[in-house]
Amino acid sequence: MCQLLAMNCNTPTDICFSFDGFAQRGGLTDEHSDGWGISFFEESACRSFHDTLPAIESPIAQLVKNYPIKSLNVIAHIRQANIGAVELKNTQPYLRELWGQQWVYAHNGDLWGYKFSGGVPTQPIGDSDSEMAFCDLLNRFRELSPTHEPELKSIYDCLKSFCEEAAKFGTFNLVLSNGKYIFAHCTTHLCYIIRQAPFSEAHLSDKDLSINFSAVTTKKDRVAIIATEPLTDNEEWTQFEKGQLLVFKDGKVLDLE
Amino acid sequence: MCQLLAMNCNTPTDICFSFDGFAQRGGLTDEHSDGWGISFFEESACRSFHDTLPAIESPIAQLVKNYPIKSLNVIAHIRQANIGAVELKNTQPYLRELWGQQWVYAHNGDLWGYKFSGGVPTQPIGDSDSEMAFCDLLNRFRELSPTHEPELKSIYDCLKSFCEEAAKFGTFNLVLSNGKYIFAHCTTHLCYIIRQAPFSEAHLSDKDLSINFSAVTTKKDRVAIIATEPLTDNEEWTQFEKGQLLVFKDGKVLDLE
Repeated sequence: MCQLLAMNCNTPTDICFSFDGFAQRGGLTDEHSDGWGISFFEESACRSFHDTLPAIESPIAQLVKNYPIKSLNVIAHIRQANIGAVELKNTQPYLRELWGQQWVYAHNGDLWGYKFSGGVPTQPIGDSDSEMAFCDLLNRFRELSPTHEPELKSIYDCLKSFCEEAAKFGTFNLVLSNGKYIFAHCTTHLCYIIRQAPFSEAHLSDKDLSINFSAVTTKKDRVAIIATEPLTDNEEWTQFEKGQLLVFKDGKVLDLE
Repeated sequence: MCQLLAMNCNTPTDICFSFDGFAQRGGLTDEHSDGWGISFFEESACRSFHDTLPAIESPIAQLVKNYPIKSLNVIAHIRQANIGAVELKNTQPYLRELWGQQWVYAHNGDLWGYKFSGGVPTQPIGDSDSEMAFCDLLNRFRELSPTHEPELKSIYDCLKSFCEEAAKFGTFNLVLSNGKYIFAHCTTHLCYIIRQAPFSEAHLSDKDLSINFSAVTTKKDRVAIIATEPLTDNEEWTQFEKGQLLVFKDGKVLDLE
């Protein structure tokens, strides 16, 4: 099983604390040692780092842990390879441009027997089930609107229906972003926390490290963190329901049903 | 003016030596301090690093100088912003998937008055003339073949004709790769060198640093380096002719005319 991490905020925030705990799962506190990646949005563009080395050994992960890149939307992934070899082309998050926006996607789970539809224009570069589903999804989005971003509700409905179809092949926990929203879908394991004033101290589950958020935030800040498993052991995380699709913006869950 | 660097080899090679000299131009030996980026191919996927900081100050550039990522095809860019703000979305190289391959592109020069054709599916994320031309080029390639990579000669002819059109708007020095070839087009400044046995010592132009390539290569290795200006001061670089488009594979220039 792979591990997912996403962050959505109302003010540019660095992910160093959460990523530090998360990266431990890439070979130390968990067995996900088949590469990792992270994408930081800056408006509709993004800056990505990928490595096929385990996160705990990767010099690039070391840089990310120590270099505070501030962003409103971040997606990270640690891989345990089941379908597709340990190669860069199968290392998530995957990225594609659609509607003049970068779209970033990370998937946890196996879609056994999933076949790429053969659609165009978006095609897989690697050979993982995860990327095939991503390409099909973006081609589906493009059918909805070939040139520009449609209403959020249309994207939501299209994604929800796609998730239901994909989940027939297995586990389809995913985080997806275009730099405006984080979309998060759960079939088995996904949880989130929203941190806002009054901020308190948080302690990592995967490493003996604490941070006092009240010292590094303002009263207006709001940050949503989404992860496969809770990243801290002294805060209350909300579990997603099975089949639930949530959309986060400005550190809040939007109501789209 | 921006600065371009590309490498094409017959055996996976790191670019640390060339990039070390090249990065000096990002704010130290030259005035190109509006961000930089580099993409390393591993088969048809690639690993990219971008930063809006000047290359000489960037912690990411420091990582790239010290972390020997071996690749057959590399493209790097240092920006001096003329058209488009200093933001990540305008930081090259630009990347897009086409035919199930990653395509990477970096452009030096200004295309005054260039307008994006409005074509689909590939659309600009930022607002630079360089990215608009890249998107038009990929949509042109897709008209040539919607689903799969066509014969090299067709790509070459399409690219040559596109370069002639784009050059009417100004300077169109570019390097482009899909992980198999480096395509390089010159309207004003571009040069290359092919290093092969017997290897000798090279000394950087932008920094007092030498390397004895014979100590780190085998007799079979062949490496082509393409750059805006020669990177070393004790080797003979070949200047491109104006309007020339060359294709490099396995560290050699292919004959396609």
